[in-house]
Amino acid sequence: MDLQTAIRERRSCRKYLPDPLSRETIEELLEAGTWAPSPANNQPWEFMVVTNGEFKEKIFAEAEARKSILFEKSGWKWLNRYEVGFLKEVPVILAVIGDPKKTGADMFLKDGGQAYQHACAAAIQNILLTAHSLGLGSLWFTLFEKDAIREILGLEAEKDPVALICLGKPDGEPFQTPRKGVQEKTTYR
Amino acid sequence: MDLQTAIRERRSCRKYLPDPLSRETIEELLEAGTWAPSPANNQPWEFMVVTNGEFKEKIFAEAEARKSILFEKSGWKWLNRYEVGFLKEVPVILAVIGDPKKTGADMFLKDGGQAYQHACAAAIQNILLTAHSLGLGSLWFTLFEKDAIREILGLEAEKDPVALICLGKPDGEPFQTPRKGVQEKTTYR
Repeated sequence: MDLQTAIRERRSCRKYLPDPLSRETIEELLEAGTWAPSPANNQPWEFMVVTNGEFKEKIFAEAEARKSILFEKSGWKWLNRYEVGFLKEVPVILAVIGDPKKTGADMFLKDGGQAYQHACAAAIQNILLTAHSLGLGSLWFTLFEKDAIREILGLEAEKDPVALICLGKPDGEPFQTPRKGVQEKTTYR
Repeated sequence: MDLQTAIRERRSCRKYLPDPLSRETIEELLEAGTWAPSPANNQPWEFMVVTNGEFKEKIFAEAEARKSILFEKSGWKWLNRYEVGFLKEVPVILAVIGDPKKTGADMFLKDGGQAYQHACAAAIQNILLTAHSLGLGSLWFTLFEKDAIREILGLEAEKDPVALICLGKPDGEPFQTPRKGVQEKTTYR
């Protein structure tokens, strides 16, 4: 698929068909992730591919609980309406796990120490674009406490589950969200 | 350009030709950025396109000073050897500026409040891939203190200059950095 088509057509998908993904497809997605840039080429990411229903159920339970808590804290109505049942149905939940020790020179900066997260985010974007190019839907999901995900997935305390990525064949056409124009977002110096 | 070609061929470029980029090219790059996903489609990015030599000179001076300080703190020899003169020569330095107020529901999480940075990182990756597809070199640059960049570029204190992106025609072939294999980075649950 053409790069610009992937960039412009990719959308968040919240309804999936149960069809499993092949190991080959999963590795193709992950390899696209690994070609992301990172500080001093530290490659500060690891991937955990979750297909087991028991783990998905626990992730769903965490998201459900967290949604209620965040709705109470924020009062944001969309949080109350947000159905996260797709976490049980989606064939693959991919945990993208960052290593803060591999953040690079920014660990010595005043507001630094987060470059490893940015590298993981770039890897995630490669994965989302590749998923779309393979006819798959995807969702960048962060409605969880990191400690809860560490416990569910058995991660070490010093590893950072930056995001969970839902991956599977889309059930229907995802909603097309618009974007503000470039002029509105840009100044020149 | 094919998506996978862009993902696999993109490399960090640290030597640029002085040829300016057209406004059309710059807007094409930025528009690719705006199609990145963001929490609740908040689009928490702004772009500042720096082409003026005076600003580039100040950014170079900050990077030079910071490099020395970080070398002293870290003892990392590559920092001492790292020549950042390309900051004066590159035709465009793009500041990608995040808005922490647009981070989304993660602001209510224990380790949250950084999702706006991740969205900016996804936008940056779209821009780097698009630059490569247009025959341009790029570099994701973060060797600066954010306060210094805020002062140089006249940004508000509450805005976050997440990264500076160098963009221009490459002078020569960038160094090809390898990647670890997917198997080494992946577990299955």
